[in-house]
Amino acid sequence: MAQEIERKFLVKNKSFIELSSHHESFKQAYLNSNPERCVRIRITDSKSFITIKGKSTDDGLSRFEWEKEIPTDEAEQLMLLCEDFSIEKKRYDVKNGKHTVEVDVFEGANKGLILAEIELSSVDETYEKPDWLGEEVTGQKQYYNAALSNFPFSQWS
Amino acid sequence: MAQEIERKFLVKNKSFIELSSHHESFKQAYLNSNPERCVRIRITDSKSFITIKGKSTDDGLSRFEWEKEIPTDEAEQLMLLCEDFSIEKKRYDVKNGKHTVEVDVFEGANKGLILAEIELSSVDETYEKPDWLGEEVTGQKQYYNAALSNFPFSQWS
Repeated sequence: MAQEIERKFLVKNKSFIELSSHHESFKQAYLNSNPERCVRIRITDSKSFITIKGKSTDDGLSRFEWEKEIPTDEAEQLMLLCEDFSIEKKRYDVKNGKHTVEVDVFEGANKGLILAEIELSSVDETYEKPDWLGEEVTGQKQYYNAALSNFPFSQWS
Repeated sequence: MAQEIERKFLVKNKSFIELSSHHESFKQAYLNSNPERCVRIRITDSKSFITIKGKSTDDGLSRFEWEKEIPTDEAEQLMLLCEDFSIEKKRYDVKNGKHTVEVDVFEGANKGLILAEIELSSVDETYEKPDWLGEEVTGQKQYYNAALSNFPFSQWS
């Protein structure tokens, strides 16, 4: 149970792939995609989770987050109850200074979208910005994964 | 993770109280009150839980249920994210033959409503019906606690 503090960016090119030490496939769906009480089920190659998030602060930087690891067979059962649209993506971990940048390459209805996140321990913590990071989109709700499940990138004009 | 099978009844009078071996106060609220993917946070006098339920079968008897005990301080944090209306009730356990009848005496906006539930291990399991049980309301969605949180008994005509 914690406050999640992160900055989110578009990604200019795929040069991050050769810098990545690890990647995994993620599938996630929502028991509630409302950003004020978002309930997410996530299954990765190695683990599964239930995660609950509250609404973000006005600056979009920080958000209440509660997460528990659960057995994958239970996550699969819970996914059957979720809202219709799920998110599939590959997550690349890229070491960058003292942080790890998580880069999500979306698939399916969000194919073409690549988002990077840097998790911080306080809102004023500094970070290095690698040259493959593009425009910052922190707090822009259309880039929330819960929003992308209902209004995917392929439908944006 | 299991299929919850139960029959639900109105209660004619309060004679169950002197038959009860135990009672506890329950407070519960919803991260999603949609009956197809209901996400409930419950805090009792002794424990706290997150519970997820799916939609019921056509006969209203049986429903997917997943439940985990969680620390009460986490449940209190999660309750802050829930939908506006919560349920408060006292639950009485009443031994009845080989089953325990759970009798919920509602408070607050649902004051005046008393509901009893008998949990069964199969849909055709028999049970004794004590004389203080009234009309069966199994599967009637207005008696779901999630429904009562949004449209409480005091507002019924």
